[in-house]
Amino acid sequence: MSRNSTPDIQFDTDGQLRHLLTIDGLNAETIIEILDTAESFISIGQRHIRKVPLLHGRTVVNLFFEPSTRTRTTFEIAAKRLSADVINLNASRMSTSKGESVLDTVRTLEAMHTDMFVVRDGSSGTAHLIARHVPAHVHIINAGDGRHAHPTQAMLDMFTIRQHKGAFDQLRFAIVGDILHSRVARSQIHALNILGAREVRVIGPQTLLPTEIERLGVTAFTNMDDGLSDIDVIMMLRLQLERMEGQLIPSSQEYFRLYGLTSERVARAAPDAVVMHPGPMNRGLEIASSVADGERSLILPQVTNGIAVRMSIMAKLMGPQPQNLEPEP
Amino acid sequence: MSRNSTPDIQFDTDGQLRHLLTIDGLNAETIIEILDTAESFISIGQRHIRKVPLLHGRTVVNLFFEPSTRTRTTFEIAAKRLSADVINLNASRMSTSKGESVLDTVRTLEAMHTDMFVVRDGSSGTAHLIARHVPAHVHIINAGDGRHAHPTQAMLDMFTIRQHKGAFDQLRFAIVGDILHSRVARSQIHALNILGAREVRVIGPQTLLPTEIERLGVTAFTNMDDGLSDIDVIMMLRLQLERMEGQLIPSSQEYFRLYGLTSERVARAAPDAVVMHPGPMNRGLEIASSVADGERSLILPQVTNGIAVRMSIMAKLMGPQPQNLEPEP
Amino acid sequence: MSRNSTPDIQFDTDGQLRHLLTIDGLNAETIIEILDTAESFISIGQRHIRKVPLLHGRTVVNLFFEPSTRTRTTFEIAAKRLSADVINLNASRMSTSKGESVLDTVRTLEAMHTDMFVVRDGSSGTAHLIARHVPAHVHIINAGDGRHAHPTQAMLDMFTIRQHKGAFDQLRFAIVGDILHSRVARSQIHALNILGAREVRVIGPQTLLPTEIERLGVTAFTNMDDGLSDIDVIMMLRLQLERMEGQLIPSSQEYFRLYGLTSERVARAAPDAVVMHPGPMNRGLEIASSVADGERSLILPQVTNGIAVRMSIMAKLMGPQPQNLEPEP
Repeated sequence: MSRNSTPDIQFDTDGQLRHLLTIDGLNAETIIEILDTAESFISIGQRHIRKVPLLHGRTVVNLFFEPSTRTRTTFEIAAKRLSADVINLNASRMSTSKGESVLDTVRTLEAMHTDMFVVRDGSSGTAHLIARHVPAHVHIINAGDGRHAHPTQAMLDMFTIRQHKGAFDQLRFAIVGDILHSRVARSQIHALNILGAREVRVIGPQTLLPTEIERLGVTAFTNMDDGLSDIDVIMMLRLQLERMEGQLIPSSQEYFRLYGLTSERVARAAPDAVVMHPGPMNRGLEIASSVADGERSLILPQVTNGIAVRMSIMAKLMGPQPQNLEPEP
Repeated sequence: MSRNSTPDIQFDTDGQLRHLLTIDGLNAETIIEILDTAESFISIGQRHIRKVPLLHGRTVVNLFFEPSTRTRTTFEIAAKRLSADVINLNASRMSTSKGESVLDTVRTLEAMHTDMFVVRDGSSGTAHLIARHVPAHVHIINAGDGRHAHPTQAMLDMFTIRQHKGAFDQLRFAIVGDILHSRVARSQIHALNILGAREVRVIGPQTLLPTEIERLGVTAFTNMDDGLSDIDVIMMLRLQLERMEGQLIPSSQEYFRLYGLTSERVARAAPDAVVMHPGPMNRGLEIASSVADGERSLILPQVTNGIAVRMSIMAKLMGPQPQNLEPEP
Repeated sequence: MSRNSTPDIQFDTDGQLRHLLTIDGLNAETIIEILDTAESFISIGQRHIRKVPLLHGRTVVNLFFEPSTRTRTTFEIAAKRLSADVINLNASRMSTSKGESVLDTVRTLEAMHTDMFVVRDGSSGTAHLIARHVPAHVHIINAGDGRHAHPTQAMLDMFTIRQHKGAFDQLRFAIVGDILHSRVARSQIHALNILGAREVRVIGPQTLLPTEIERLGVTAFTNMDDGLSDIDVIMMLRLQLERMEGQLIPSSQEYFRLYGLTSERVARAAPDAVVMHPGPMNRGLEIASSVADGERSLILPQVTNGIAVRMSIMAKLMGPQPQNLEPEP
């Protein structure tokens, strides 16, 4: 997935965003426009009637080759709040000759006049593969592909940072933990760089830091106390135990001792530092419950914002600017 | 789950029912109000357009840690007839460190501005645990927790009894079968006592009768013919073979011979006795097909009433009194 | 399933189609009426708002004893475009004492005032069994039962043929492949005969041709080149590897060599012959990708038409003639 080819697929010939596959290649204006529209959707979640008819009559397909109840639910709720019909397809049982059958599945679903695919897969590049083969009226959202990208997570993180901490160019960020296996980290690094973050660090054991990670414009730390110094936003990652092969961490206790986020460690960061986590958390492994549930935690606001940001992305890809935010009659 | 603590969780500070976790602790007025509102929903099921917009824009989450297609369907239909959006989560695959992850799951879903959780779990107390941790605008319905309670089943049973047999203080009831493993039996006993039943008996083999069951205000019988004498309402239970450890019943044939409900046994009860069963039935084990499908059977009316009663409970918990029973335009 | 008894179940006493269980027993007028109504639904799939309120307030239950994500999705989309509520039940885990529990499941769902069951099962006759036991207001669509019938597939095939090739009495048809295990082939043969096809052939290895297949009014060929001669519509079947017991085909390579549809083989048919396949395809086994994706292929139009045809069937069974094709407000 080179930096050159990606933008071509995500944008249509008029330069409009058509798919959201990766943060890489977006410009700051596009990201900020999505965050601004999401602001208007935040209020819908607080209304008595939490629906707008924006996507009434459209069909959104959740096409999950890798099962994820939690992520699927956020997209399902977002689509239903926009009044779309939602079809959930757990395609994890599909055949091994994946490359071909993925495309046959997508072509079949698209022939049913569906409008959007929310795609998750354990392999990198699946959402791109699909995007390259759908006709102009079909939109793809990458809901996570292998170790590659998870752009909606990064978008909701940016929204939450802006909501609670303000200007990116004033802030230092640390992304902590299993950088190696994390599509979330890759998307966060791109988004923070595009939005002009003052500094972005990654922190983790050598075995979980990709080689040449600095090329993405970050500074790597293996010592957590050093890495957290002066940091304004601590972005924890889930330890992807299910994606690890072999002995990448010594033991759970040892990992927590060296890289677990405790109140003592938060105190090493800037005085009003906040803590984020994409969930689901491994409590007591990468994060202490006292921090996860503490007053610095933005973990639940991240979830709430995730619905509004996904509504904003769906509305942006599928149609003209949101015109009708009134509740349905 | 003591009698003292339970009512506090179910009611808000104004004394309004906020969650339905257990029948225990409700008063007769509350139960009767739910049954009365259900009457008005019965007619909706008979209309050409079977929907009212009462919960339009609200989100109901079916959170089933123990799978049950049948029960999930009843809540899904009830919520959709009220025009709510429904999210089905089969959470049975969740991690073993259940206590913590159940709460993280619920906090996450609640942060998405969902309005109601319908919770089923194989462990007693899960719905209570969740109810203790949700904010004021979120409502919990217990759809069955371990051997503890199944209050919506008891409610629909009371509705069906009132519909077909009239005043509770004129009626004798027998609950028959696997009392030991039955959350249905516990909820039925509470409801019948609150509504002033003339007499409540439980009938079953000694191995399936809980010790000290009489403390709940019932009389226990191990001989079925004796127990059914003069009974007006025979409430059969499903033999919970999947919850039994070891040899609690001698054999299927022997169990049917001693405790199976046959036409001959129905004849031992009062002349116009009716037969109920919460389903799904083990035909030929706890009940003969001739009785299940016979003219005394209220088993299908129970199912029909179950939708209206669940609509009534959802409407009661979530909002003011139902105001708009007109079909959607 | 005799030819005599079937029509009685499918039609009500006024001669109106009440269930769609099999093509056998329908007359040409009924089929053509369904195809004509489907024409009007085609345009809905091309609109910005792809919904009509025809079945608003009705409940359609997808009751799939044999799992099929693809077929379930087509019915779910069709029902939602008609504004019905849809309940998906994957009942494949059900008990072995199937005969009885299927009816208990159906009686229970029907007592919830549901309006239509879309039934799929691995055993022949399940949809008929259910149809014989539901009350007058409940409608059954057979979405595939064992090797017996798949009438909605045959209907959408007829629609697609009429759309692209015109009059049936001018056309020669070849159904190719695993005739033995194919419910699709049986339904196609009935439909083509009812609509007056000029000629219908079946082509396959002797081991995959049912004995006495000619009784259905077709000519059997074991040599593919001979069978395809002068054919206007080539109707490929999926090789039902999962339903085969023992060695019915020599090897995948050998099967493809003898019966795989290649461009060379298409050239043996009539000059403007078209190619159909019900999907999902085994590419490189029964069909070459160059043919599946080639300009003669109607495989994706079949999928698109499948939604409109299923909408037409649902509307025909459930109500009077479609009166309101305007989009929802």
